[in-house]
Amino acid sequence: MNKQTSLEDIVSLCKRRGFIFQGSEVYGGLSGTWDYGPLGVQLKRNIMALWWKMFVEDRDDMYGVDAAILMNQKVWQASGHVDTFTDPLVECSNCRGRFRADKLDDPNKCPSCGQKGTFGEAKQFNMMFKTVVGPVSLDTEISFPDKDTVRIKDNNYLYTIDLSKEEREVRADSNDEVALNVSYLRPETAQGIFTNFKNVVDTFYPDLPFGVGQQGKAFRNEISPRDFIFRSREFEQMEIEYFVHPDKWEESFESWRKAVWEWCEALGLPKESVHELEVPENDRAHYSKRTIDFEFDFPIGREELLGLAYRTDFDLGNIQRVSGKSMEYTIKGTNDKFVPHVIEPSFGLERAIMAVLSAAYTVDEVNGEKRVYLKLPEHLAPVKFAVSPLLKNKPELVEKAREVFSLLKKKHGAVMWDDNGNIGKRYRRQDEIGTPYCVVIDFDTLEDSTVTVRNRDTTEQKRLSVEEL
Amino acid sequence: MNKQTSLEDIVSLCKRRGFIFQGSEVYGGLSGTWDYGPLGVQLKRNIMALWWKMFVEDRDDMYGVDAAILMNQKVWQASGHVDTFTDPLVECSNCRGRFRADKLDDPNKCPSCGQKGTFGEAKQFNMMFKTVVGPVSLDTEISFPDKDTVRIKDNNYLYTIDLSKEEREVRADSNDEVALNVSYLRPETAQGIFTNFKNVVDTFYPDLPFGVGQQGKAFRNEISPRDFIFRSREFEQMEIEYFVHPDKWEESFESWRKAVWEWCEALGLPKESVHELEVPENDRAHYSKRTIDFEFDFPIGREELLGLAYRTDFDLGNIQRVSGKSMEYTIKGTNDKFVPHVIEPSFGLERAIMAVLSAAYTVDEVNGEKRVYLKLPEHLAPVKFAVSPLLKNKPELVEKAREVFSLLKKKHGAVMWDDNGNIGKRYRRQDEIGTPYCVVIDFDTLEDSTVTVRNRDTTEQKRLSVEEL
Repeated sequence: MNKQTSLEDIVSLCKRRGFIFQGSEVYGGLSGTWDYGPLGVQLKRNIMALWWKMFVEDRDDMYGVDAAILMNQKVWQASGHVDTFTDPLVECSNCRGRFRADKLDDPNKCPSCGQKGTFGEAKQFNMMFKTVVGPVSLDTEISFPDKDTVRIKDNNYLYTIDLSKEEREVRADSNDEVALNVSYLRPETAQGIFTNFKNVVDTFYPDLPFGVGQQGKAFRNEISPRDFIFRSREFEQMEIEYFVHPDKWEESFESWRKAVWEWCEALGLPKESVHELEVPENDRAHYSKRTIDFEFDFPIGREELLGLAYRTDFDLGNIQRVSGKSMEYTIKGTNDKFVPHVIEPSFGLERAIMAVLSAAYTVDEVNGEKRVYLKLPEHLAPVKFAVSPLLKNKPELVEKAREVFSLLKKKHGAVMWDDNGNIGKRYRRQDEIGTPYCVVIDFDTLEDSTVTVRNRDTTEQKRLSVEEL
Repeated sequence: MNKQTSLEDIVSLCKRRGFIFQGSEVYGGLSGTWDYGPLGVQLKRNIMALWWKMFVEDRDDMYGVDAAILMNQKVWQASGHVDTFTDPLVECSNCRGRFRADKLDDPNKCPSCGQKGTFGEAKQFNMMFKTVVGPVSLDTEISFPDKDTVRIKDNNYLYTIDLSKEEREVRADSNDEVALNVSYLRPETAQGIFTNFKNVVDTFYPDLPFGVGQQGKAFRNEISPRDFIFRSREFEQMEIEYFVHPDKWEESFESWRKAVWEWCEALGLPKESVHELEVPENDRAHYSKRTIDFEFDFPIGREELLGLAYRTDFDLGNIQRVSGKSMEYTIKGTNDKFVPHVIEPSFGLERAIMAVLSAAYTVDEVNGEKRVYLKLPEHLAPVKFAVSPLLKNKPELVEKAREVFSLLKKKHGAVMWDDNGNIGKRYRRQDEIGTPYCVVIDFDTLEDSTVTVRNRDTTEQKRLSVEEL
C-alpha cells in the first residue's frame, strides 16, 4: 500500500473491476450489505479455503462444524446477547435522524441537520436481527372483547387497555405463543461451536487440547454501517474455539498467537502494518482473562483485523446452566473431570479482504505513466494467468491462444481469456485485478511455440515455451 | 442403497457418526434447522467445491457471484415473493395446531388432536422470514394523543382507534418509517444473480450465452419442516442463471440437461434412481415455458432433487419494470438489443447430500455379521484414509503410524488418525463414515515399510509399501 492510498481508491477499483458492489444496488442499495462480483467471490473463496486448510484440514487437533444461522433463542439468552448486545442510540427531535451515541463527534449536535440539543436520552438498541420461526404471524391483531377493553396482540405481548378507567393504562402480558418463536440471525458464529461441543466430544472422543472451527455468515444490525466492508450488517466470520485444561490456557494462547502471525504472513500483510494490542483489563469483556486485538493499518487508520481471547469457561458454563446439561470433559483413563476453558481466535473475513486489498494496492510509474496494480500473493490472486492473442482478428492466433488457454486452465484453474482492447489496455486491466502473469500469443508462437509472459510486479516480459508455463 | 433402507437408518448414522445433528439440539432443538458436524461439513464442502469447479471454474462461459442474504425489499416485491410466496395455513380451533392445508391426509380432521371439522378457512401464509434493517424498532408503541384516541404503531401500520364512536373501528395507515426498513431472509439465491446481471455485463463484457452461478444460504419459513434435511427452514442453494438469446433457448436448455446428468453421475447416483419429470404446462410457473424436475428415489419416495427451468425474461423484465433501469443486452458490433432470456439449473445442496447418503448407504454381510457402510465416491468421502497402529500401547508402532499419517496427510489432506478400540471396531467405524481405505501399521511395517491397506467396499486387505499409497 502506498501511503496516500485512500479507501475511495479501493472501493472504486472494487466496483470498476467486478470485485465488490453495493448490495441491491439496482434498487438503490441496502445499507450495510455488499455483493461480491466474479473476482471478489474468487478472492473470498481463496482466503476462506486458505484458512480452512491452515486451521482445520492441516491440523490433527481441529474439527470443523457448520451450524445453522437460525438458532433456538435460548442460545442468545444464555450467551447474554439478548440482554447486553446493544449500542446506545439517540434520536434527533428535529430531523428524526438516529445515531450511535458513542460515535458522535459532538454529543450535543446532530450530524445530519446540525441542530444543537435535540438528542433525548440514549436508548439501548439491540443489534440482533429479530425474526419469527414457524407458522406464527408478526402481524398485530387488535380486538375488542367488550366495550371497555382493547386487546392488542403483537409479537411480544398481549396488551390490554381498560377504557373504563379515566387514567389510560396498558397492561402487557407475555404473548408466549409468538415469544417462544422469536429467533435471531446469529450475531456471531462462536455459539454454533459451543452448542456443538458435546456433539463433537461424543462422536470423536478427542484428547485435550482440541479445537473446533467454523466459517459462516453473521449479522449485526449496525446503527451506522460504514467504511465499505469494514463495518457491515452482514459478514462472514471464521472462528475457532480451542478447548484446553484450565491450568494450561497460557501455552495454547501463545501457540495461537504464533498461528495468527503465520496467518497474517500467508495473507501477504507486511509485518510492520500488523500490531498487537494487549487489551487492558477494564476494556476486556468481564469473562476474558486476556485478549489481544490484532490491528492493521487500514486506509481508514489502525483498526481491529482479528482478535485472540481467553474466554475461560464462560460460554460452556452458560450452556450448562441454561440447558441443564453437563458440559464437562473427562480426561481419558482418569477421574479428572471439568468444564474446559477456551482460547478463541476470531477472524473477520471482510476485514481480511480489506487488509489484503489495502496491502496489495500499489501505484507506480511505467514509461512515465501512472499505473495502479494489485500486488496480491499468487495463491490469493483471483486470476493466475490471463491469456490473449496479440491480435483478435487473426484466426490462427486466436486458435493457438485458445489452445494455450485450455492447457493452462486444466493445470491452474484460475485462468482468464482476455481479448478486449489492445495489449496495453489488457495489461492495465490485469494489473488492476492482480493477475500475476499475462501470456500473449503472437506470430512467433505459431513458429516456435514460445509465448510472451509478462510479470505484473516488474512489468518485465520473458519469452517462454508453452511447456514451461 | 438397499431397498429396505429407511430415512431413520440414515438420520441415525448421521447423528451417531458426526455428520448431521439437529440444530440447537442442546436447547431442545429449533425445528427445521440442522448443524453439520466434522464429517458432514467435509462432505458438504466436497459437494459444493465439486459444483463450483464443474459449473463455474472449469467453464469459460460462467461467472461467480456471492450476493448478500439481506436484500432491499423491492427485490421481493418485483419478483412476486411478497405477494405470492405463500402456503395455505389452517388452524385447529380445538388444539391450536397449525398445518399446511394442502398436505393434510384428511382435510377435515386435525392430525394433532384428532378432532373433526375444527379447521377454519385457510389463510395464505408467507414463507419469507421477515426482519427489520436499521435502527428502527419492531416493538409496538401504544399512545393516547387525546382521551378519545388510541394510537398503535407497529412494524407495518399506524393504527388509530376512535373511542368516541359506539362502533369500534380501527384505521390502519402505513407506518412508512418501519415499512421501508422491512427486509426478508432471501427465500432463493436466484435474485442475487439477477440483480447483479448488469454489474457482470458492465465489468466483464461477456458474449451471449453466458451464465452466473452462486452458492449460498436461503431460508423458507416452512409450516411443517420434515423428512430430515429434505425440507428444512434454512438450506444451501447452488443456482445458475444462464442468459441466452430468446431465439436460442432450446439449445442451452438441452446442453444444461446434459450437464445435470453429468452432475448426477459425479455425485455417484445410480442412473436408474434419477428420473426426469417433464412438468406439464398447468403445473409450471406461469412464466416458465419448460421445466424438467429431476427426481431421485429417496428413502422417503421419489422426490425432487433439482430443477431445470426456462424462465423467459420474467426476472430481468421485473427488475427493469420496478427499478426503471434497462436490463437490455446489446450483441457486440450490432444493433441487436434485447432483454436476455434465462435457463435456470437450480440445485439444492441438502437434497444432493441426502441423495448421496441414500445412494451410498449399504448393508451387507461380512463373516456372517451384518455390516453397514457408506459406498461414497472417493472424491466425496470426508476421509480418504484412516491410519492406525495395530496396537496403541506399542510406542514403536504408534511412532511409525504417525509418520505414515503425516506423509499421507501432506499428500491427500483428508486423512484421519484412528486408534480407538480394536482394529475390528475401527474398520466398522470407518466403513460407516465411508472411508475408502484403512491403513494399518504393524510389526512388519517396522521391518519392510509395508502396510496393510483395507478396501472399504471389498473388505479385502493388501500389503503395499508406504510409497505406493
